Amino acid sequence: MIIVMKPKASEEAIKNIIQIIEKNGLQSHLSRGDEVTIIGVVGDKTKLVNQSLELAPEVDKIVPVTESYKLANKKFHPQSSTILVDNVSIGPDTFTIMAGPCAIESEEQLVSTAKAIKASGATMLRGGAYKPRTSPYAFQGLEEEGLKYMQTAKQETGLRTICEVTSLPALETAIKYVDMLQIGARNMQNFSLLKEVGRSKLPVLLKRGLAATIDEWLNAAEYIISEGNPNVVLCERGIRTFETATRNTLDISAIPVIHSKSHLPILVDPSHATGVRNYVEPLSKCAVAAGADGLMIEVHPNPPCALSDGPQSLTFEQFDTLCEDIRPYVQLAKRSF
Amino acid sequence: MIIVMKPKASEEAIKNIIQIIEKNGLQSHLSRGDEVTIIGVVGDKTKLVNQSLELAPEVDKIVPVTESYKLANKKFHPQSSTILVDNVSIGPDTFTIMAGPCAIESEEQLVSTAKAIKASGATMLRGGAYKPRTSPYAFQGLEEEGLKYMQTAKQETGLRTICEVTSLPALETAIKYVDMLQIGARNMQNFSLLKEVGRSKLPVLLKRGLAATIDEWLNAAEYIISEGNPNVVLCERGIRTFETATRNTLDISAIPVIHSKSHLPILVDPSHATGVRNYVEPLSKCAVAAGADGLMIEVHPNPPCALSDGPQSLTFEQFDTLCEDIRPYVQLAKRSF
Amino acid sequence: MIIVMKPKASEEAIKNIIQIIEKNGLQSHLSRGDEVTIIGVVGDKTKLVNQSLELAPEVDKIVPVTESYKLANKKFHPQSSTILVDNVSIGPDTFTIMAGPCAIESEEQLVSTAKAIKASGATMLRGGAYKPRTSPYAFQGLEEEGLKYMQTAKQETGLRTICEVTSLPALETAIKYVDMLQIGARNMQNFSLLKEVGRSKLPVLLKRGLAATIDEWLNAAEYIISEGNPNVVLCERGIRTFETATRNTLDISAIPVIHSKSHLPILVDPSHATGVRNYVEPLSKCAVAAGADGLMIEVHPNPPCALSDGPQSLTFEQFDTLCEDIRPYVQLAKRSF
Amino acid sequence: MIIVMKPKASEEAIKNIIQIIEKNGLQSHLSRGDEVTIIGVVGDKTKLVNQSLELAPEVDKIVPVTESYKLANKKFHPQSSTILVDNVSIGPDTFTIMAGPCAIESEEQLVSTAKAIKASGATMLRGGAYKPRTSPYAFQGLEEEGLKYMQTAKQETGLRTICEVTSLPALETAIKYVDMLQIGARNMQNFSLLKEVGRSKLPVLLKRGLAATIDEWLNAAEYIISEGNPNVVLCERGIRTFETATRNTLDISAIPVIHSKSHLPILVDPSHATGVRNYVEPLSKCAVAAGADGLMIEVHPNPPCALSDGPQSLTFEQFDTLCEDIRPYVQLAKRSF
Repeated sequence: MIIVMKPKASEEAIKNIIQIIEKNGLQSHLSRGDEVTIIGVVGDKTKLVNQSLELAPEVDKIVPVTESYKLANKKFHPQSSTILVDNVSIGPDTFTIMAGPCAIESEEQLVSTAKAIKASGATMLRGGAYKPRTSPYAFQGLEEEGLKYMQTAKQETGLRTICEVTSLPALETAIKYVDMLQIGARNMQNFSLLKEVGRSKLPVLLKRGLAATIDEWLNAAEYIISEGNPNVVLCERGIRTFETATRNTLDISAIPVIHSKSHLPILVDPSHATGVRNYVEPLSKCAVAAGADGLMIEVHPNPPCALSDGPQSLTFEQFDTLCEDIRPYVQLAKRSF
Repeated sequence: MIIVMKPKASEEAIKNIIQIIEKNGLQSHLSRGDEVTIIGVVGDKTKLVNQSLELAPEVDKIVPVTESYKLANKKFHPQSSTILVDNVSIGPDTFTIMAGPCAIESEEQLVSTAKAIKASGATMLRGGAYKPRTSPYAFQGLEEEGLKYMQTAKQETGLRTICEVTSLPALETAIKYVDMLQIGARNMQNFSLLKEVGRSKLPVLLKRGLAATIDEWLNAAEYIISEGNPNVVLCERGIRTFETATRNTLDISAIPVIHSKSHLPILVDPSHATGVRNYVEPLSKCAVAAGADGLMIEVHPNPPCALSDGPQSLTFEQFDTLCEDIRPYVQLAKRSF
Repeated sequence: MIIVMKPKASEEAIKNIIQIIEKNGLQSHLSRGDEVTIIGVVGDKTKLVNQSLELAPEVDKIVPVTESYKLANKKFHPQSSTILVDNVSIGPDTFTIMAGPCAIESEEQLVSTAKAIKASGATMLRGGAYKPRTSPYAFQGLEEEGLKYMQTAKQETGLRTICEVTSLPALETAIKYVDMLQIGARNMQNFSLLKEVGRSKLPVLLKRGLAATIDEWLNAAEYIISEGNPNVVLCERGIRTFETATRNTLDISAIPVIHSKSHLPILVDPSHATGVRNYVEPLSKCAVAAGADGLMIEVHPNPPCALSDGPQSLTFEQFDTLCEDIRPYVQLAKRSF
Repeated sequence: MIIVMKPKASEEAIKNIIQIIEKNGLQSHLSRGDEVTIIGVVGDKTKLVNQSLELAPEVDKIVPVTESYKLANKKFHPQSSTILVDNVSIGPDTFTIMAGPCAIESEEQLVSTAKAIKASGATMLRGGAYKPRTSPYAFQGLEEEGLKYMQTAKQETGLRTICEVTSLPALETAIKYVDMLQIGARNMQNFSLLKEVGRSKLPVLLKRGLAATIDEWLNAAEYIISEGNPNVVLCERGIRTFETATRNTLDISAIPVIHSKSHLPILVDPSHATGVRNYVEPLSKCAVAAGADGLMIEVHPNPPCALSDGPQSLTFEQFDTLCEDIRPYVQLAKRSF
């Protein structure tokens, strides 16, 4: 942490800061410049958490030097993590495809989808039982009934399953039925929910919030890991910008950025990022090429009749073509698929 | 709802759309242009909620004509609403100031703050007992203990009280102690929480999400109202943009926009919007001038020692000056204060 | 400037940096922390402009401490500037209203507008002769003919005049006819144009770019001032965000931010910021309350027939009401109007 | 174009709109709904360009149906264009790599770079002679002297050359020396410059503005094409968002979006998009995979000593590795390289 004093700060103001730092058991380093004086703080800066140093007299600003997340930070855990969802590994050596409908609508819909995606190469089945919808008048999900269909689909295909949880009751129900929990973009900073999934034993897919910086996203992961659950997989799904040609703007740079700042795996969800079926295939290839550890893709037996997000869902046939098309890219990335 | 066909769409494709519309009990109106053909849909479009018309052959795009929120919509409720928090009215005739510390730290801190803000003109006391913090290592709030201090402060001053709730357990506890519930920016689309506050009897202050459009914000209000609780007050607190000189960007235009689209009252929180104490006063005046129905301001007995958001908190004296400074603006707006 | 080394940076890497700093005639201050070592640079950092220190071995990042603009910076020029446009002062003691049509369409249109706005209280006439339009098929302006009408309008009313310049030829023509030059949002970083208006003798209104940070905006002002023209007035006209309810998002906080970082005056253009006539009045009041030094408002004799930006233009009568409505706010701000 | 009337609009208001439409030689189609009435306009809507229909009584809003760009529009030119820069083709069958220093610093720097990039596989040399820099105190370019070095480098290597032009004088000079002109992000809406490059005979690389929507970008291309120069190549180089981990946010979705809306080729500039050398390689691969027609890459003989943008420049060796690494991706895309 560096404290930048205002131009011509008085000796008294500088001494005052140094006293606060040293009183808290830390060391200070003073650099006097022609225009400004800066004071470096050495030691465990959490000791200063109750001090609003920006408010001390003649302080101009505080510049943080280290990140506030530790357990998710590559600096302290240089090797890339591999997360196990039962026998499915998500990490640097594999390429994991999760697919399925945005919303679970019926047993038949889900089981037929599970069979189709398995045949094409997916290893995990996604399906929403609790749907966060912008309007209260849109379909809200089948809840526990939907989760039972997930279990059936798993039994019939052997696919591992993942479902979004949007509240504590949903979480308590979901852990009985699925293999991995998803925290959606709108709940990325629902900290009480993050702590709860941190206390569960299941691996967690943490989607990036629409307006979340990468730093905030890794701090959200830190909430989960610091409760004792290190099995976190990140998922980039587009951020909100001024561009309206796509539903959101896929921040593809987030993949190399995350790989440089964190050891956690990262997937890409091109379906939600764009909201347009025709863009899913080029963005899937590009996710592989950028270094993603997997994909999450929306697939529906009959997209025009989907109760949620039909425009971005692939048919079984389109999904099969997609898997064929990305296979050589996965090979170039030296990952198994 | 208007359906725009692709250029040179076939007769068959056009007929297909018209059949879907009419099969669902709605009427269609066809306009053939030189370049494109458009089809208007007349009637209750919720009947089409299960139809992904964008996916029908040769459809270019769907243009919605009416908003998806109804109960929060000024079109169907032209008169501005006044929300009562006990004897405190929030609406077009009054100017309501809520003030207090970002986080409740002790009984003494809270009670002294309550007395000071009351003397200056505030009618409601704010204070956080459940703090959503970016990092898991930052102070998380006193929880129920803090709420008890709120009750004490109310008894000693007569101020009405408001507290943010971040989860269902927090909500269940808070309704025992406070007069109004707050949904924070990070939970604006925590739909299960919105439904629960909608089922409570208490009035709700709904802050705008960092990346929420005004349309999404009014849909979030719709979640609360559609559960039976019409007592919703909106609060603009800054949106996320590329500018970093302030913590967020206060969208001051949201005030006249909300007043033209909705009948709900709207407050402004300049403390969170800017994160900088010196900007609170000019932005408070400007909120009054833009037509806001009130303010939410952070006040702390000793900002440099605040456990949360010290840099943006006012001292008692600064808050008193602020209230004096905005008084003539409130008079110009012909509101009582 | 502060150089943050990577965790566990070698002694050799640290020495290397110190050598580069000292070889360039600057001083270094070393702070060794538990996690990272930081090196402060003291002296005139422009001496390092040819050194990409971020690329030196084991450097994590470079943190700038001082702003790159000097002449526009309040730190080196603490008193607020007053800019004179002939006998019209723009600065802390006055409130200047510039008004007129988005595009000049005819002599009659312009002269009638000039008379009307003068009667209501404006002291400067705006009018576009060179229109930057998104589509090449939209009306592009009357060019020099329009400027001649500006001169006529000035003769008939005594109002000072301002016109946007979009290229060097436009600039060369405009200086013959008008009293102040405007650089529009789209040209805020057209550096060759900034240098040319810097070499002219006329005062300049510099609008903020749609995606420009306040720091970039003040650097753009620095381009003009560093060429010898200190007469720069800033104009906030909305930035681009995800919100679509208004054409742009008026960054009202920019007013106190500019007043704290720069000595230059700042106006607000609520017409372009919102694109909606009904929002012009509340945002005008709010600009006064936030501390703006003036307003730029679009006025047209017959908005439904305007060749450009009709939806946001006020009629003569609406403008007159606006001036009446903001008068008490200007008085509260202790400015003359 | 569709006109949406306010709820309960009067018969008179509806008739008024229909009269305006028909008086201008267009046809109207009326759809009366339960809540709102909409009026479709059929015919050449440019006839309505002088009518601000949004201002007519009881009109709620105007919804455009067709794009305002025609010559750049895929609807009217379905086949992808191939642009020739001398003997270098840019289009759907090839993959073109432009590389070179951000700023031209000396003949030796430029010629050595040209030889190195040619050996690695680039076919065009980029180099800035006129540098748009945020601060007036940063290096501004060698101007005509730099262009002469471009010519030398071309003679020695046979590479085609491209240089950014930032003003009319720069353009007049550059056309004497280089094979292709570049319009930079900051000048994307410098319409007078767009018209001038439209009148030149040279092909143009049009970079996307930092805050430009895809629609505005294609309208900027329309400016160039409508002046008679159809040889426009687009270049995505990142947009401005709230994320600060990269200098800009590469909008990778723009590639499939442009390919669906326009026939013009599109390149990607990962160097400017991220500002970080380590991210250039993954984003280059991902650009190929997403369907880009080429890349623009910054290369410098000695990045730590570059006068501009050193942190994002590759060394000769890194560029050679990059070309090797992307080769199999180009082959998968069935393009020649």
